[in-house]
Amino acid sequence: MLTKTEIQRLRSLREKKHREALGLFLIEGEKGVADLLAGRFPLEEIYATPDWSGRRTREISPAEMERISQLPTPTPVLALGRISRPPLPAGGLDRGLTLALDGVQDPGNVGTLLRIADWYALDRVVLSPDCADLFSPKVIHASMGAFSRVPVHTADLPDALAGARAPVFGCDLSGEDVHHLNPARDAVIVVGSEGRGLSEGVRKRITVRVAIPRYGGAESLNAAIAAAVICDNFRRTLGAGAG
Amino acid sequence: MLTKTEIQRLRSLREKKHREALGLFLIEGEKGVADLLAGRFPLEEIYATPDWSGRRTREISPAEMERISQLPTPTPVLALGRISRPPLPAGGLDRGLTLALDGVQDPGNVGTLLRIADWYALDRVVLSPDCADLFSPKVIHASMGAFSRVPVHTADLPDALAGARAPVFGCDLSGEDVHHLNPARDAVIVVGSEGRGLSEGVRKRITVRVAIPRYGGAESLNAAIAAAVICDNFRRTLGAGAG
Repeated sequence: MLTKTEIQRLRSLREKKHREALGLFLIEGEKGVADLLAGRFPLEEIYATPDWSGRRTREISPAEMERISQLPTPTPVLALGRISRPPLPAGGLDRGLTLALDGVQDPGNVGTLLRIADWYALDRVVLSPDCADLFSPKVIHASMGAFSRVPVHTADLPDALAGARAPVFGCDLSGEDVHHLNPARDAVIVVGSEGRGLSEGVRKRITVRVAIPRYGGAESLNAAIAAAVICDNFRRTLGAGAG
Repeated sequence: MLTKTEIQRLRSLREKKHREALGLFLIEGEKGVADLLAGRFPLEEIYATPDWSGRRTREISPAEMERISQLPTPTPVLALGRISRPPLPAGGLDRGLTLALDGVQDPGNVGTLLRIADWYALDRVVLSPDCADLFSPKVIHASMGAFSRVPVHTADLPDALAGARAPVFGCDLSGEDVHHLNPARDAVIVVGSEGRGLSEGVRKRITVRVAIPRYGGAESLNAAIAAAVICDNFRRTLGAGAG
């Protein structure tokens, strides 16, 4: 049985300002919660209706679930997690493969980019502070579980890149053909926003400009597509790598 | 000056059933309309406010544009086009590269897939009848102009594939590694829906199963990402091709 105050608190987490104030976020759905549990992600509470066969800390009724769910069709489980934004440690970009997102504001794109980083076993994702909020339901949903598997940091990108020993690869139509690229085992791949591309401060830190060759009429590819093609070309040459 | 009836008719085109009944669709925005004009796409009318510097057939006021626009922030131009769904000609899959979409219902995905087909200069896209409507504003918008550049056909896929001389490539986690694939110059690449994958009838027609190697934890890639990676691997080996 949930109190009125609890219901209000859970409902308030739809909005970023309340998530920030409370330091909490919600994740809904059997798959999403199971992924967090499998990833040993620390959870404050797991609210579940009698239908849910997995672990729970609070049993609630379907009517209560309907009140706290943000989904048009509520699922049997909803977990409350604690927001943490681990800063990038010193030298954090020096080893392995990093995907850095520079001002990617569409939450679906951020989630899809996490999923790509997960598929291609990148070592981490770094978000600039103006990216879509990692803890928004849309990002978590679009990441299809990658959210709980890929280490994600938030950092001022120009500063972080300035101190990186690894080469910084950035997409640029006039860059080197990704099909003929010699990918580095330690590297940062930077992806900009769909509308504006890379920010000025980040552009100065690019050491290798990469182009995906265009054969037809489209003027561009979306950020997630471009990142996937670059990651695929890296892994094709590097193999699975040390990780 | 638009009559009330004209405004109602244009507003009704938000819904697919009205688009089908009238055989008409709308495209909004400077870029979208300019792309259609550049592609010599036949348009019935071009409604524009005095701000629009391009070609128009009807000058309207910003207040009228606001009434007929489907966008939160109307643009200075809106074109009315005639729906046409050219059937696939006999032997239509035998030559060149085809991207076939099997039940891709998300309009953003269909638009993104058109954009990928455009970037990689595929010769055509074939939609199964249960794909998102090609003439929906979301598909047109997500295609970023590819809509007017890539030939698109609608066809019953199992039938069309049964008659194709070109090999049919389908994504399958247990297929051949796309990094070691010998791509054919004439080929059909089939992409299924995110939720269900390939339909039973289409699955029977796959002649080469292709896998994108997975290095990390994600269970899948989205349909558009997978298609882009496969197209990139085809073009990497084939080059620009004869088209």
